[in-house]
Amino acid sequence: MNTHPVAPHPLSTQELHLIDAYWRAANYLSVGQIYLYDNPLLHEPLTLAHVKPRLLGHWGTTPGLNFIYAHMNRAIKRDELNMIFIAGPGHGGPAVVANTYLEGTYSEFYPDVSQDTAGLKKLFKQFSFPGGIPSHAAPETPGSIHEGGELGYAVSHAFGAVFDNPDLIACCVVGDGEAETGPLAAAWHSNKFLNPVRDGAVLPILHLNGYKIANPTVLARISHEELDSLFRGYGYTPYFVEGSDPALMHQQMAAVVDMAIADIRRIQQQARQSDTVERPRWPLIILRSPKGWTGPKVVDGKPAEGNWRSHQVPFSQLANSPAHLQLLADWLASYRPDELFDANGRLRAEIAALAPQGTRRMGANPHANGGILLRDLRLPDFRDYALSISRAGQIEAEATRAMGVFLRDVMRANPDNFRVFGPDETASNRLGAVLEASERTWLGNLQEDDDHLGADGRVMEILSEHTCQGWLEGYLLTGRHGFFSCYEAFIHLVDSMFNQHAKWLKTTRSEIPWRRPIASLNYLLTSHVWRQDHNGFSHQDPGFIDHVVNKKADVVRVYLPPDANSLLAVTDRCLKSRNCVNVVVAGKQPAPQWLSMDAAIKHCSQGIGMWEWACNDFAPDDTPPDVVLAASGDVPTLEVLAAIDLLRQIAPDLRIRMVNVVDLMTLQPASEHPHGLSDRDFDALFTTSQPIIFAYHGYPWLIHRLTYRRRNHGNLHVRGYKEEGTTTTPFDMVVMNDLDRFHLVMDVADRVPALQHRAAHIKQAMRDRLVEHKAYIEQYGEDMPAIRDWKWPY
Amino acid sequence: MNTHPVAPHPLSTQELHLIDAYWRAANYLSVGQIYLYDNPLLHEPLTLAHVKPRLLGHWGTTPGLNFIYAHMNRAIKRDELNMIFIAGPGHGGPAVVANTYLEGTYSEFYPDVSQDTAGLKKLFKQFSFPGGIPSHAAPETPGSIHEGGELGYAVSHAFGAVFDNPDLIACCVVGDGEAETGPLAAAWHSNKFLNPVRDGAVLPILHLNGYKIANPTVLARISHEELDSLFRGYGYTPYFVEGSDPALMHQQMAAVVDMAIADIRRIQQQARQSDTVERPRWPLIILRSPKGWTGPKVVDGKPAEGNWRSHQVPFSQLANSPAHLQLLADWLASYRPDELFDANGRLRAEIAALAPQGTRRMGANPHANGGILLRDLRLPDFRDYALSISRAGQIEAEATRAMGVFLRDVMRANPDNFRVFGPDETASNRLGAVLEASERTWLGNLQEDDDHLGADGRVMEILSEHTCQGWLEGYLLTGRHGFFSCYEAFIHLVDSMFNQHAKWLKTTRSEIPWRRPIASLNYLLTSHVWRQDHNGFSHQDPGFIDHVVNKKADVVRVYLPPDANSLLAVTDRCLKSRNCVNVVVAGKQPAPQWLSMDAAIKHCSQGIGMWEWACNDFAPDDTPPDVVLAASGDVPTLEVLAAIDLLRQIAPDLRIRMVNVVDLMTLQPASEHPHGLSDRDFDALFTTSQPIIFAYHGYPWLIHRLTYRRRNHGNLHVRGYKEEGTTTTPFDMVVMNDLDRFHLVMDVADRVPALQHRAAHIKQAMRDRLVEHKAYIEQYGEDMPAIRDWKWPY
Repeated sequence: MNTHPVAPHPLSTQELHLIDAYWRAANYLSVGQIYLYDNPLLHEPLTLAHVKPRLLGHWGTTPGLNFIYAHMNRAIKRDELNMIFIAGPGHGGPAVVANTYLEGTYSEFYPDVSQDTAGLKKLFKQFSFPGGIPSHAAPETPGSIHEGGELGYAVSHAFGAVFDNPDLIACCVVGDGEAETGPLAAAWHSNKFLNPVRDGAVLPILHLNGYKIANPTVLARISHEELDSLFRGYGYTPYFVEGSDPALMHQQMAAVVDMAIADIRRIQQQARQSDTVERPRWPLIILRSPKGWTGPKVVDGKPAEGNWRSHQVPFSQLANSPAHLQLLADWLASYRPDELFDANGRLRAEIAALAPQGTRRMGANPHANGGILLRDLRLPDFRDYALSISRAGQIEAEATRAMGVFLRDVMRANPDNFRVFGPDETASNRLGAVLEASERTWLGNLQEDDDHLGADGRVMEILSEHTCQGWLEGYLLTGRHGFFSCYEAFIHLVDSMFNQHAKWLKTTRSEIPWRRPIASLNYLLTSHVWRQDHNGFSHQDPGFIDHVVNKKADVVRVYLPPDANSLLAVTDRCLKSRNCVNVVVAGKQPAPQWLSMDAAIKHCSQGIGMWEWACNDFAPDDTPPDVVLAASGDVPTLEVLAAIDLLRQIAPDLRIRMVNVVDLMTLQPASEHPHGLSDRDFDALFTTSQPIIFAYHGYPWLIHRLTYRRRNHGNLHVRGYKEEGTTTTPFDMVVMNDLDRFHLVMDVADRVPALQHRAAHIKQAMRDRLVEHKAYIEQYGEDMPAIRDWKWPY
Repeated sequence: MNTHPVAPHPLSTQELHLIDAYWRAANYLSVGQIYLYDNPLLHEPLTLAHVKPRLLGHWGTTPGLNFIYAHMNRAIKRDELNMIFIAGPGHGGPAVVANTYLEGTYSEFYPDVSQDTAGLKKLFKQFSFPGGIPSHAAPETPGSIHEGGELGYAVSHAFGAVFDNPDLIACCVVGDGEAETGPLAAAWHSNKFLNPVRDGAVLPILHLNGYKIANPTVLARISHEELDSLFRGYGYTPYFVEGSDPALMHQQMAAVVDMAIADIRRIQQQARQSDTVERPRWPLIILRSPKGWTGPKVVDGKPAEGNWRSHQVPFSQLANSPAHLQLLADWLASYRPDELFDANGRLRAEIAALAPQGTRRMGANPHANGGILLRDLRLPDFRDYALSISRAGQIEAEATRAMGVFLRDVMRANPDNFRVFGPDETASNRLGAVLEASERTWLGNLQEDDDHLGADGRVMEILSEHTCQGWLEGYLLTGRHGFFSCYEAFIHLVDSMFNQHAKWLKTTRSEIPWRRPIASLNYLLTSHVWRQDHNGFSHQDPGFIDHVVNKKADVVRVYLPPDANSLLAVTDRCLKSRNCVNVVVAGKQPAPQWLSMDAAIKHCSQGIGMWEWACNDFAPDDTPPDVVLAASGDVPTLEVLAAIDLLRQIAPDLRIRMVNVVDLMTLQPASEHPHGLSDRDFDALFTTSQPIIFAYHGYPWLIHRLTYRRRNHGNLHVRGYKEEGTTTTPFDMVVMNDLDRFHLVMDVADRVPALQHRAAHIKQAMRDRLVEHKAYIEQYGEDMPAIRDWKWPY
């Protein structure tokens, strides 16, 4: 970047004229998108036939976004900035589409929307039209990494985008509606996690246009003093641009943008020349401009510009109101399109020259199509991290601790494009080894005895699942890799964020070939439902899986590795995958280990399989087993194996098959999910006639929902979490939900004809054991040694 | 309240001595709960046998909570304040339990935990022990309206509690971990919605103890200047109490509490004597005290007090470390229990005298057991709001608009205990009539042309679903009634908050008889999946229903009324219900009306039923119909009826039964849900042999999950939302998901034997209609008149 002085009125008359023309052009194209079906340049007198039959879209936020985009173009072009644009406000689509069209990128991605009259007509028609484009900035929008509709994530996406991108600036526009949301309110504190040396910069622009749908906004109606104080408290230097007169506003905005860019440059230069890194006070722009700026001042005798009535379409019902048709004609003409576009509908060259060139155009910045920049992770061989297992179930280990060592070396091998995210739980989730490779990111004050904190850290912890998820999404969408570990119950906090990301991936996979595949979003859910020993009932919810599997099958994967080696194999697979959301559920507590690494690899690559060492159904003929015991999840696997041990003592002749499910989606029909087993394979595992007792990690009905089309579904009996729980011992938790070994034996006794004559006796014996258990824990507060110390004996 | 001067060191030596003794007693009881199994007063030398085998709990936050509680007691007692205590920090259970025990309320609720040595032993043992009590403030905790585990909702709960409770003060402690969350960061702005005349006050206490689980907190590591600025920006006057020396801290805290209470009183007095209401600057206390304050200074050579290592249990492994046992003995002795409790284990009278009396005790305040104060709503007769329907399907209406008129009169009749909440969508969701009864709550600046804004409003809109939900929960838990309307897709933002509330209700219903029933939490989900005409794919998610039905059946209800009259009947039912979460899904767009009010009442009271006027299976014999067409939801109902019309034209002899489902839980077996149909009734409706085509509002597999045990499940074919959508017309949305009338006819043709010989022909005719539809919308941007204007013709 060049140095340049900051002037109070930096624009010459000619510059002012041109930037205003550029802005008018964008505004014209925005109104055109909302209203026009034909006659895009008003070369004929406007008639009803030129207007869309259904008027959809939101004008209110659009002129402000256009204003900001034009001014960012000026800064990019002069200083050769590397900048992306994040449009936080909902329904900001027309603005981003208009600007990427003006700068030429839109037509490069969508050649049929050409830079001529025919292209303009298509541009206008397609907006909010069947088969066209959405009203929000969306995956379809060049230059966007952010779906603008839900509101709340603009700032965390922006920070995620610039981590490890030292040259990048994310210009992040936050609407004052969005600024009321919780995720956004928390994300302002992201500045405590941004390193001015290794990371880029976020230039937030709080756009106060005063109104949401029908109400004023909180931040638009507090005093200037409070507003200034709030953002200073958040750690920013706020610069204000306030007014409505375009000429004055252009000068103010240019001056403020120059100051903000100068601040960023100064901060980065100082930090990069210094030995120590301190948190700087980053600039922030507060732009207060009228809602629906430059739109009609009055509609039907009521104020429109500067009012909530401009939030959506400022007027409609054109078929019934010639006055409205005239209002539209006058409004469009007010931008003087003839001065902006030539006779063929092309933006005039002197105006077009204001836009940056090539990949400096924000619509063409490769960071906003991260797959282009994606490099494969350098992955150490996960087999090197294997626990040595000579016999099943003889040693205990914490699965996530083994994973942590693997992730540590992934961090070491990929210092500039892999980060780990989590709400203050990396160590608690036994992933602490990653701290040997990198500190926790921390730009706050340091104190003696702080543990692994530093500005250069890439382990990112803030007690806001929303912020973690937003950072990670921004990081992935700009072409990097990451990993989010979270308490299982509280991942529901980001249900709606997951929805948006999964929908983004579905759309890009199926409809937008120019969006290149990005790294998958990987969740580790641990501290899971079965081990909330003292958090109790409020921390028990395995339902994120249910939420996830509602999304398009192409995009979602769910893994329940039963031990450390299988967790390692699954982790490797997830880190290599693209354009998916991978959900891995695994406990962090010491637990028996079952599979050698070779066995784990085979098991995980199939996703489901018989554990032959736990079966005794190897009859010489093809007779099916008497019963299939299936497990999915680490705790259910333990209980199923303990139940098999009991059954082998009670009924040595009983032929038992044990099936373990790592990849939950194998249960679905192959027609429903790419990982789904064929019916033939499913029937071979689960038989077509014998009882199946299925012990599942989560809500049991999910297994029914996945398998109801399978032939033997009528014989399937599922145990899982049924919302029973409290502060109690690990084994008591499974007992409360009938998932324990004793209940499983009772289930078998109830369902296997060969045991029918002894069922009452077996069940009474199991009930006796449960009574003994209850008495013990009430006395001693922990599980009986015979249960705690049980080992697979065969 | 009395007036009293505010002194810098308000405590006399005797007062200081006593309040410190009270605090020590609470700290002693807290440590005892975490560590002791027996020997509660150390009357014998401490041995391993006196220590719990598993040490669970969090010491870090506890002494600060005890400190605050003691000081609030002082203020309550002197000024006769009506105050409740909200413990935001996770794992704050030991503190609230200790304090309610000291003030006597705990033993009143739980007589076996008596105020003597035996009771102390029980108090200690039960904490985080099987069959005991959780580590968080919880439903079991007297005086609590707030489950402390998830973090994020303390402030919104506190504000919800004091709306329409002018004499109440909610003392709300926010941990600095919780303060990092989004929902909490947004909730500080609740002060823009609190009316000092009609509402009470919240006294927030930000408790900075510096650390989360393993990290420092953001707010503890920004400068004093930034912290002060942040909260002034949020609109508060922050008072700081900082230090670690108990004697100095007691004086500081007493002085600051006196100032804060004086502020509250002054604000309320001024506002209540004034004609105009302006937003005041409410006080807020920032208490910076060491984590694990008064705990061991050093453990195993490492700093403990004031460090993250004090977050949980500061030391364990007592069986292996005699030094740790001694450390515990010394720590307990440091509180000098003999000075605090008499020989029988009762708190000494001069210390006990510090607590308030009766219902002024925070553990006994009836507002914290809202069911005690609950008054039934005065409900106008919903029948008076009926749309007049002489023949099915002849008129169109917006269902939510009719509901809005009913709610308007509910608001009018219940001016002090009913509020409506929503994220800026009351008018957009067509509930605008409520604004005739009350303005939108707004304490921000007013401007000319503002629409229905006022300090006295009870329609509460902030663009934060989290804050809306938190306010409503606080309002309900303190014994009032409310209603939350939200976009269907974005209600997922509060999935995790719903979880906590549903778990609270489940626990109180089944395990805590002293918690009296409260009004149900009522959701209206509108702007639903099928009508996101220009928001498009990102705004389409009907999965909240799936999320809700995972919770305990006793607690959850889901209603899908097909028209305005049935929505009115359902609304009346929800407003009368107790201790449930009611989810109502209904569209806001103009749609055909089917049921007269009498028919709607009958239909909604059964929850499911045949619509006889739409059936033609009335054969003289008992032959079942050829096919059952079922619908649940307004859009599916329309498509099913249109499909029946087509089928009657195509195959007049086909015997069709039409079933409509309003109460989704009727589909579950009666053994699974209290609303579940008996198998006999289910079979009577759906037959045991005939094909069922079920058009459902949401994800189709939910219907399978609810019905997989039903006899005719094998013949059930469900259509619903399968994650296909974009910016398109209403009818095209159903087409994209195969839920439209033409696909439904094809489904029938595929499955009904009587049509088999004509199936190919029928299906081709339907495909032709779909091609015609696609061509039309691509040309005109809206649905064909023949589809838009279709009316039930019989």
